[in-house]
Amino acid sequence: MEKTKVAIIGLGTVGTGVAKLLLDHGDRTARHAGRIPWLEKIVVRDLSKTRDVEIPEGVLTDNLEDVIQDPEITVVAQLIGGIEPARSIMLQLLEAGKDIITANKALLAVYGPELFDKARQLKRCIAFEASVAGGIPIITNIGQCLTANQITSLRGILNGTCNFIITEMQNSGAAFSDVLKEAQRLGYAEADPTLDVNGADTAQKLSILSQLAFGVRGNWEDIPCKGINDLNIADIRYADRLGYRIKLLAIAKLVDNEVEMSVSPTLISKGTPLAEVQDVFNAIRVRGDTVGPVFYHGQGAGQMPTASAVVADIIDTVVGRSQITFNNLELWSERNRPRSMADAGQSINRYYLRMQVVDQPGVMAEITGILGNNGVSIASIIQHKSENKDSSATVPLVIMSHETMQSAIDKSVDQFKDSKSIESKAVVLKVI
Amino acid sequence: MEKTKVAIIGLGTVGTGVAKLLLDHGDRTARHAGRIPWLEKIVVRDLSKTRDVEIPEGVLTDNLEDVIQDPEITVVAQLIGGIEPARSIMLQLLEAGKDIITANKALLAVYGPELFDKARQLKRCIAFEASVAGGIPIITNIGQCLTANQITSLRGILNGTCNFIITEMQNSGAAFSDVLKEAQRLGYAEADPTLDVNGADTAQKLSILSQLAFGVRGNWEDIPCKGINDLNIADIRYADRLGYRIKLLAIAKLVDNEVEMSVSPTLISKGTPLAEVQDVFNAIRVRGDTVGPVFYHGQGAGQMPTASAVVADIIDTVVGRSQITFNNLELWSERNRPRSMADAGQSINRYYLRMQVVDQPGVMAEITGILGNNGVSIASIIQHKSENKDSSATVPLVIMSHETMQSAIDKSVDQFKDSKSIESKAVVLKVI
Repeated sequence: MEKTKVAIIGLGTVGTGVAKLLLDHGDRTARHAGRIPWLEKIVVRDLSKTRDVEIPEGVLTDNLEDVIQDPEITVVAQLIGGIEPARSIMLQLLEAGKDIITANKALLAVYGPELFDKARQLKRCIAFEASVAGGIPIITNIGQCLTANQITSLRGILNGTCNFIITEMQNSGAAFSDVLKEAQRLGYAEADPTLDVNGADTAQKLSILSQLAFGVRGNWEDIPCKGINDLNIADIRYADRLGYRIKLLAIAKLVDNEVEMSVSPTLISKGTPLAEVQDVFNAIRVRGDTVGPVFYHGQGAGQMPTASAVVADIIDTVVGRSQITFNNLELWSERNRPRSMADAGQSINRYYLRMQVVDQPGVMAEITGILGNNGVSIASIIQHKSENKDSSATVPLVIMSHETMQSAIDKSVDQFKDSKSIESKAVVLKVI
Repeated sequence: MEKTKVAIIGLGTVGTGVAKLLLDHGDRTARHAGRIPWLEKIVVRDLSKTRDVEIPEGVLTDNLEDVIQDPEITVVAQLIGGIEPARSIMLQLLEAGKDIITANKALLAVYGPELFDKARQLKRCIAFEASVAGGIPIITNIGQCLTANQITSLRGILNGTCNFIITEMQNSGAAFSDVLKEAQRLGYAEADPTLDVNGADTAQKLSILSQLAFGVRGNWEDIPCKGINDLNIADIRYADRLGYRIKLLAIAKLVDNEVEMSVSPTLISKGTPLAEVQDVFNAIRVRGDTVGPVFYHGQGAGQMPTASAVVADIIDTVVGRSQITFNNLELWSERNRPRSMADAGQSINRYYLRMQVVDQPGVMAEITGILGNNGVSIASIIQHKSENKDSSATVPLVIMSHETMQSAIDKSVDQFKDSKSIESKAVVLKVI
């Protein structure tokens, strides 16, 4: 059987998983590829570090040139995170004639256009299944399996750390900060979890998926994005009582040839597939105009699920499928019919509002008056009785709206500020 | 943009959907393929029949030779159902040098090895995404996206008609025969629904999936198969009370390098994704040793979901991906490491048993004695009180077992026959 020489750059969690698969399951990858993806080199920064995989002699190197200069190494899995030196290494590898596999979503979300342009110029390809939702092969599904469709909407739970935290808050009733500590202890959250919990990681993934599915142009930082860092257990409880679960949901949908996008904690009806996604799992619902809804659920991160995606890409590249797919992808290409991101204010949704209000007559009339004046129609109200007789005590008020424009909600919330009856800024969550 | 000439054989429901996509959305397919899949010919039996799609002049023909003899037509979607003439036409098309797309599961389940051999000999390819679970791209997912894995188990709801009937029985409390009539009225069941409701259609699909995932050899007719035609509403109700839903479930799992397979109405815990699959939807849970569980849910049949799969295959074939995939598939190939189907009797599961028993002292001891002697350990028993005082009245007895070998259950049920306390043959259903 013929060999294709492969290199790995970076032997962190995912790199180690990929090395294990190529070394320990070489017969399987060879059978599935019809040729041997031969692990020729692994480039690391520190040669002396103890590794969690047995590496044959001569494979480990700290010199990138060992890969760059070897023309027989044609396929490289670039598994370094962050922007630099990942970006420069990608460019160097492309210049050296390598086809590349990457799991680096942050890099693609920012430098995707540059890297894809360079690859196209040089007639090379970039495969990136592992960059979004690890164990769910969503890139191939959108980029290849659903090509008969115009995708009309995407909804995804794309960050396992956030989903674990929300599930735990729901189950235990504990506050965000306590559950975050627990998640860190279990290794489900990084020491610095900022990019996970503030929604940035989800927005980067949504940016890649929506550029792939809709050709939408734009920076991931322009996606309206709200994380779970100020998610209050009270809202999880009220949502539960109303028949919903809260999930950090990424949404992209086609509206009048523009794409509405958002990342935010969202109320989803219990019993629907997305609402029931537990723990560190990811899930994505894609709707195509031909196929209807297709729902995917799997492990979004972790060493082996992500390595599964990287090795599938290595096999696809070794056999030549990635090259074809890459050539035909409209993603970050001239062939793309670009669409713009829609104005978030025009987005029409149902909304959940919660505020602390003074327990006095007339308050309800004031609030519903403001909402009514802005054209917000109310579906239901839950007002809780005060537990003490003190007339200055505040009580929680929960309002569910009918479908309404986001700008009307924003305007109402802005006007609530002037009211002496409303104690603090209203919590506003989308409802689907 | 260059063209690849494509033909369709058969303009039934799916063929019409495919023609619509190629004709009405030609720009989309061309953009996704990087070349134009040009619909050159559609072969039908009856030229005079009114069609549900506007077909350009010169495209429709009743002469297969118009396709066979045209060397420029290199890709053919063969969309005739049943065994003959579908099989002969497939062979003729392969001989004539065409790459083929098919949705015909019955043909593949029986003649897959012959057709694949012929295609390999002639260096042609067969793409068959639409043959299983229409709108769920499960063939590409197993055959390409999860190639880093050894699949260890598959569980699927693969027949939309059966799932619709069971969902309706559950919701309305109506009997199988009444719901079947309703399904026929709505167009969800054929005039002759035998192959759907007796499980044969599901077994054929399972046969294709399990040969793809496990390389298991064997005839689909050897898969232990029980349909829903004698599914009793009483069992749906008892299952519900015990916290389960009943689904017609196809199962294949790797046990000691053999593959255990079955199709049967199965109790699945409420709240798990497979249990919540409603109406005509299909769903598949695949477990890989690297990726863990991946769950897919979508429309299993219908004109456009199936056409979506066929057109994705047409694009894959036009761009050359199908050829690569087909060459590397172990399915029905010499490169396959064949596995055998495991002895069903050795299968270990939990079981649900229901029988009508005489309402007299000693009956429970007799039944539990038989089960105990055969090594079946009981998890729970529900015995319902008789509603009249007549000592000859029978009452339903429902037993849930712990994990036990199927042969022990079969032996027990066999021994129940000799008991004068048990009125009729026990209903036995698997529990997962």
